[in-house]
Amino acid sequence: MTTPSRRDLANAIRFLAIDAVQAANSGHPGMPMGMADIAEVLWNDYYSHNPNNPKWFNRDRFVLSNGHGSMLQYALLHLSGYDLPLDELKNFRQLGSKTAGHPENTHTPGVETTTGPLGQGFANAVGMALAEKLLAQRFNKPELEIVDHRTWVFMGDGCLMEGVSHEAASLAGTWGLHKLVAFWDDNKISIDGNTDGWFTDDTPARFEAYGWNVIRGVDGHDATEIKTAIETALKSTDKPTLICCRTTIGFGSPAKAGKESSHGAPLGKDEVVATRAALGWEHGPFEIPQAIADGWRAGNAGLVREDQWNRVFDAYAAQYPELADELVRRSHAELPATFVADADAYIAKLQAEGPVVASRKASQMAIEAYAPLLPELVGGSADLAHSNLTLWKGSKSVATDDPNANYIYFGVREFAMTAISNGLSLHGGFIPYDATFLVFSDYARNAVRMSALMGAQAIHVYTHDSIGLGEDGPTHQPIEHLASLRYIPHNDVWRPCDAVESAVSWKAAIMRHDGPSCLVFSRQNLAHQPRSAQQVADIARGGYVLKDSVGAPEIILIATGSEVGLATQAAEQLGDKVRVVSMPSTDVFDRQDAAYREAVLPKACRKRVAIEAGVSDFWRKYVGLDGAVIGIDEFGASAPAEKLFEKYGFTVDKVVEAAKAL
Amino acid sequence: MTTPSRRDLANAIRFLAIDAVQAANSGHPGMPMGMADIAEVLWNDYYSHNPNNPKWFNRDRFVLSNGHGSMLQYALLHLSGYDLPLDELKNFRQLGSKTAGHPENTHTPGVETTTGPLGQGFANAVGMALAEKLLAQRFNKPELEIVDHRTWVFMGDGCLMEGVSHEAASLAGTWGLHKLVAFWDDNKISIDGNTDGWFTDDTPARFEAYGWNVIRGVDGHDATEIKTAIETALKSTDKPTLICCRTTIGFGSPAKAGKESSHGAPLGKDEVVATRAALGWEHGPFEIPQAIADGWRAGNAGLVREDQWNRVFDAYAAQYPELADELVRRSHAELPATFVADADAYIAKLQAEGPVVASRKASQMAIEAYAPLLPELVGGSADLAHSNLTLWKGSKSVATDDPNANYIYFGVREFAMTAISNGLSLHGGFIPYDATFLVFSDYARNAVRMSALMGAQAIHVYTHDSIGLGEDGPTHQPIEHLASLRYIPHNDVWRPCDAVESAVSWKAAIMRHDGPSCLVFSRQNLAHQPRSAQQVADIARGGYVLKDSVGAPEIILIATGSEVGLATQAAEQLGDKVRVVSMPSTDVFDRQDAAYREAVLPKACRKRVAIEAGVSDFWRKYVGLDGAVIGIDEFGASAPAEKLFEKYGFTVDKVVEAAKAL
Repeated sequence: MTTPSRRDLANAIRFLAIDAVQAANSGHPGMPMGMADIAEVLWNDYYSHNPNNPKWFNRDRFVLSNGHGSMLQYALLHLSGYDLPLDELKNFRQLGSKTAGHPENTHTPGVETTTGPLGQGFANAVGMALAEKLLAQRFNKPELEIVDHRTWVFMGDGCLMEGVSHEAASLAGTWGLHKLVAFWDDNKISIDGNTDGWFTDDTPARFEAYGWNVIRGVDGHDATEIKTAIETALKSTDKPTLICCRTTIGFGSPAKAGKESSHGAPLGKDEVVATRAALGWEHGPFEIPQAIADGWRAGNAGLVREDQWNRVFDAYAAQYPELADELVRRSHAELPATFVADADAYIAKLQAEGPVVASRKASQMAIEAYAPLLPELVGGSADLAHSNLTLWKGSKSVATDDPNANYIYFGVREFAMTAISNGLSLHGGFIPYDATFLVFSDYARNAVRMSALMGAQAIHVYTHDSIGLGEDGPTHQPIEHLASLRYIPHNDVWRPCDAVESAVSWKAAIMRHDGPSCLVFSRQNLAHQPRSAQQVADIARGGYVLKDSVGAPEIILIATGSEVGLATQAAEQLGDKVRVVSMPSTDVFDRQDAAYREAVLPKACRKRVAIEAGVSDFWRKYVGLDGAVIGIDEFGASAPAEKLFEKYGFTVDKVVEAAKAL
Repeated sequence: MTTPSRRDLANAIRFLAIDAVQAANSGHPGMPMGMADIAEVLWNDYYSHNPNNPKWFNRDRFVLSNGHGSMLQYALLHLSGYDLPLDELKNFRQLGSKTAGHPENTHTPGVETTTGPLGQGFANAVGMALAEKLLAQRFNKPELEIVDHRTWVFMGDGCLMEGVSHEAASLAGTWGLHKLVAFWDDNKISIDGNTDGWFTDDTPARFEAYGWNVIRGVDGHDATEIKTAIETALKSTDKPTLICCRTTIGFGSPAKAGKESSHGAPLGKDEVVATRAALGWEHGPFEIPQAIADGWRAGNAGLVREDQWNRVFDAYAAQYPELADELVRRSHAELPATFVADADAYIAKLQAEGPVVASRKASQMAIEAYAPLLPELVGGSADLAHSNLTLWKGSKSVATDDPNANYIYFGVREFAMTAISNGLSLHGGFIPYDATFLVFSDYARNAVRMSALMGAQAIHVYTHDSIGLGEDGPTHQPIEHLASLRYIPHNDVWRPCDAVESAVSWKAAIMRHDGPSCLVFSRQNLAHQPRSAQQVADIARGGYVLKDSVGAPEIILIATGSEVGLATQAAEQLGDKVRVVSMPSTDVFDRQDAAYREAVLPKACRKRVAIEAGVSDFWRKYVGLDGAVIGIDEFGASAPAEKLFEKYGFTVDKVVEAAKAL
């Protein structure tokens, strides 16, 4: 073989995918075979990265939103020289390999985000492109454009059918994210077959309606057409670009090309042989001839780019040392040196002053206190700014080119909002927050799960946390949501009982760099609780003794949020053998050492009452079969809040009664 | 006052809304004030209904997708003569009133669906329009069009921003639901203010891209323009229609018209006075002059329509008695007389034959067994037909005009799928089912909640129920989902352990007319369990003794689904003092009488081990603090299923060990 053709280079992707799926006897060959030519052109001619340093800050971002085609990405990473040896590809989808069924950002170098749940990768990419825009307008200086990279997305029909694609595309259009380029794998096949029966959108017209630059009718198997399309996309200065690529799923397979049978199963031994013959690929499984390997590595013009960028950055740092330090700090996810001390001082001041406010107001106060210290804090609300109380004095819309733009008007788009937060976080340089009513965390639920699965620092602010929401009624009253969010692994849920706990929850969320936090706040005012300095410090442990018994406790009342006030009042009536435990975060409490947990909830005391305006069964883990729970296990109702708390039994009398009945 | 003008009639809506919100000191006046003119024209001139019989089967359906404008709907119902007296309007948003904060189908006559969670009402309406189409093509005969009605939707910017609007509109376009007419309240205001900063879609172009008939630029305050637009919509024979109405939120309020301040709060006393003056409304709060009341009632040409329809139906029944009986049966949600016996015979046969299959396969067998008996069973999958196994021999796509069309290719649209199921159910005449992987119930989550809140019979089929899914990895492996779905009030979740329990779960779901069921099935094969006839009967109680101890149990193993087999094997090793409880539905079990529950789980036995491949804490409600749970509290991994079950401790040895350690 002499100089390999572009098709030869692309076929290397195809056969790595075909052979890996065949070896695993599991996986999705059709998409890598269909998008290989597009990927080859993009990665060899345009993608700006450094395989030796997958975390280079100014790299382009590549997102495989149709994540089932993971072998395409693994093949690209391997061929481009990332630390992903051939043995890992041979071990596709096996326990402990770096080549999971779907790309996972925590497993594989060069994978920017975890994809598979359709549409979300695209929304993550919108978040990444927004991050680039905001950092560029904050840090770039004339002729020193130290933040200047693109976000490239591959997406299939499935991504485009999902609702989240609508929300994300709409925002990308509104924000004019011109460095975002999406390739639509227009192959007219989804799992159930030819999409004629269920996907008849005029997708190009739809994206034009969002204000996108749309390039129609590109032959996704013609490198020249692909290059021309990308060149056109690069010229866009005010709109994101959708490149519509006509492709054939399973390209090259004589029997399965253009058919759904190539989507989600190995081609089968005979068909692999036939496909080798059809594409003229004479090499064995996992065999990449040197000329083709060289063709890939030689094509990586991006390899030298980090060096060039470092020189620009050095010049920048010489001229703007503070800004340079700031960018480095933010890119390393380091908090300002004084943040912890400043936050603690604010918390101590709150404890001393004891404001009686709704915890959503306390949340806003916390933002107001912390945000001036944290230019990396960026976020907003899904059209509930004045209910979620997410705006603060320094808020400036990201739809502007203000260098301090930090506030996101997400519109009524909870799912994309959350996935965009994930994208901002994964990009780096930001601590994103988003907000809606707690009940509408449902709309965003899988993106919250993805925050946790990816270890993305995203702060999800959920206000109107219970029937305390009142008149809006059961459609707006969360019941099962607290428990359901707590059950997402690696997700920290906080439900503070007053302004002090609210400030601590924000501090914890800001300091938790490796995962999401859900901060859950009340609509209504909450009493201030007295605390010693030690108690204030212990809030961060998720649960602590707020009011102790004289001697060993005979009864323990455990409560969160608005119900902590009830518990302390009930304790007054129940006498001095009663302990009150405030438990703002069960997730954090469960991570404490056994001695601390025993000190707070001694095993010997089985007379326990949990009180929370949410599903009761969750609390059996703390009160067991012998304890009691005052919760709510039906949908609420439309009425003023105080009437509802009474109707559903959240009264001091009921708590006292339950405790005495034990 | 002589003959009232159209504006006078519309102002009756406005002031009922203004006054009710003012009285409640809570609510949303802006939307009713903005859409009153549209509503007046629609309800007085076109809406075909019978206020004396809100359940008349061939009525038009009206859906207020922007449900925060509930007072618009209550005003319409009151003025049109529904059983919703003025006192109820005066009692807006109070405990026990029929006028909840958002419209609730179970509370208020004439409310077709519960709305408020944005976008879902629109998707419900798509389901209702699909129901009409399917019933029409099944039952109508030349000149005897007994099913012939329209579905009208009001929707705001919020609905259009939500992703679910994309999914639902796309399907409505694909299906050509020409009797669906949506009015877009294009007022350029959402809660955060002028939508310029976050909603810049060209919505008319977007809907044309979905294949809709779009009527642009209608003045939503001009009755003549509104009428012309509706007349145009009525002529559409193959496309749904979007009527784009330019309106002013808070129309008539001198200080708040066109501003977000009119959206979600009372106008305030002074502004109410000013608005009365501005609109020339000289009547007191809740005062509707007789002439205006008469104008509304006289306008209800629909009042006589049920009589006319009854005559057509009688003629139809004379000519097609079996079809007429069938339609009546289905409209009353009655199962065929032989269904229960036939299902029981099928279940008994399965128990005798003992097939070893994946429960998703058992689900398909159940559909295959029951669907021929149930022409009302309509459903499909979100592009996973061959994974969810939802297709059966009699499946015929609803995209056709086949009279027996019953299968829905939903595409990759889990949220709209579920909301459309809710719409099909609420319309009547159908038992809908939908399907996806269990993990992607997340995408549909709030619609599942709405099924439960509305008491809608919808069967949500979720396959690939655990790490047993294998190689696709953690993005596709449900962990917290079983517990989270069980925590939705009024939702029945089933996770059967073999083909027999699977068939029982389908039977239970089909018989549960007043709420949803989530049927959760495995990817992998499951062992058949031996049972007596009594045990087979007890499956329907949600939990039962599958394998009993000799004498009182010393240890109880509780398991569901794929872990029941583990439990029975472990019990063999643990000796004859061990009881195994199969618990396919904790929701149903919890509803059994105390004596039954005690017989299955005697309080005296505290040595309990629960085994389920999902979050462990859920099971503390059955095993307490003294028992043990074998569950999984982290995200799974990509590997063959058997490797994962071993890695995460789902082995006979671990169960035995946990039981012995108690």
